[in-house]
Amino acid sequence: MSSTLSPLALRQKIRAGEHTGNTSGFAPGFVQCNIVILPADLAGDFLRFCQLNPKPCPLIAAGEPGNPALPLLGDMDIRSDVPSYRVFRDGEMTEEIPDITNLWRDDLVTFALGCSFSFEEALLADGLEVRNVSAGVNVPMYRTNIDCTGAGPFAGKMVVSMRPFKAADAIRAVQICTRFPSVHGAPVHLGDPGLIGIGNLALPDYGDAVCIKEGELPVFWACGVTPQVALEAARPSFAITHSPGCMLVTDLRNSQLAVM
Amino acid sequence: MSSTLSPLALRQKIRAGEHTGNTSGFAPGFVQCNIVILPADLAGDFLRFCQLNPKPCPLIAAGEPGNPALPLLGDMDIRSDVPSYRVFRDGEMTEEIPDITNLWRDDLVTFALGCSFSFEEALLADGLEVRNVSAGVNVPMYRTNIDCTGAGPFAGKMVVSMRPFKAADAIRAVQICTRFPSVHGAPVHLGDPGLIGIGNLALPDYGDAVCIKEGELPVFWACGVTPQVALEAARPSFAITHSPGCMLVTDLRNSQLAVM
Repeated sequence: MSSTLSPLALRQKIRAGEHTGNTSGFAPGFVQCNIVILPADLAGDFLRFCQLNPKPCPLIAAGEPGNPALPLLGDMDIRSDVPSYRVFRDGEMTEEIPDITNLWRDDLVTFALGCSFSFEEALLADGLEVRNVSAGVNVPMYRTNIDCTGAGPFAGKMVVSMRPFKAADAIRAVQICTRFPSVHGAPVHLGDPGLIGIGNLALPDYGDAVCIKEGELPVFWACGVTPQVALEAARPSFAITHSPGCMLVTDLRNSQLAVM
Repeated sequence: MSSTLSPLALRQKIRAGEHTGNTSGFAPGFVQCNIVILPADLAGDFLRFCQLNPKPCPLIAAGEPGNPALPLLGDMDIRSDVPSYRVFRDGEMTEEIPDITNLWRDDLVTFALGCSFSFEEALLADGLEVRNVSAGVNVPMYRTNIDCTGAGPFAGKMVVSMRPFKAADAIRAVQICTRFPSVHGAPVHLGDPGLIGIGNLALPDYGDAVCIKEGELPVFWACGVTPQVALEAARPSFAITHSPGCMLVTDLRNSQLAVM
């Protein structure tokens, strides 16, 4: 089964064009990352934005300008090892392509950010039901009224993902996710969605709605879509991101991200 | 000020009959314990009850039969170093007295259990508002529909204490209290009180009601009144406890109870 490929073998298949879709469920146990690639003149501001907003933008690795390697994360070439890329020019998406080798420049800097797959794996391993996983849909995500701290042109509201739990499981989820600050960490809110500016849980801004059963609380995590919203606001002349769900699969183990 | 006395100096004043009341706020930074004293023939069942229900009954120390010392907790004599004791015969309280030296027997076993003062101090030190502390009242406590696991004659429902917090502070409180499993640990519930069998938060079964402000969630911790309820159910021929609020002040620092 391809889902049991090592991260390196999976990246080699991706590089060869033999795997072009979603990476969810592949290389279980290993960290998958959100990718943002920016010209060096914006990289300092974006790095500062991540450091100021570590819950939605948990920076795991940053590359050197012009260098497509991320040695901390494994033997890889960021120009070819993500299944699908989105290219933005002057803030508008212009292409969705499986390889960016032809677009690479000497001034591009790669940022790899933690993603919720890692903490969902930890929740599942503890026996909790993660509704979007059991329902086989994308997690519902919502724009909130929580301001991120701006840095240069990067600013915006925090986007959150939502997973419903019974209270005791919500408390357990806080404990589990606290161990993983580099993949969004503990939830940022639970209970009344209106308190963070969410009008209707049945109408997510991104992803798919999930049912909330009787006796369950909605629990909200800072979400990796937040830096994409900040990118939209900044309208950089040039930027590249991964396509949703098509992540960079790394050699880092999820367990290595645990702070205790 | 007497509140800055060392635990040993405070116990000496208590032993001398110079301090007979509440210990709340005294010897800040040091662990205070709930006390249960039982004949040896019941001690095994009670110990097992504590081990089966560690959140409401977090056992910090147990004495040897007939020995009034608890060397783990400091230089002390359990017969005189608690400000006030309640004596129970056949399950009924018969006396409330400041010294039990005359009642001591060769078969009595002392149990010292963690108390919420320790985690409240950690919450306050983190900058959280603890409503019962800021209001200057006893924490509200409620009988729930959560069954404790029985052991011998000891059984009953869990009693919980409640403190209201905004969601982000509730999440922070889970993180802080998780570090302190021996003083009730993380909350057992938050949100809808009806889900754990509590009908009306304004009518606590013990302690005083506190206001819940708009946007706050009630957060519920397992409470040290639970073993007293189990004791009532067991109706032992003989038992001694501390009087409410009149705790054993120990030489252990609260910080020493942190597991990380």
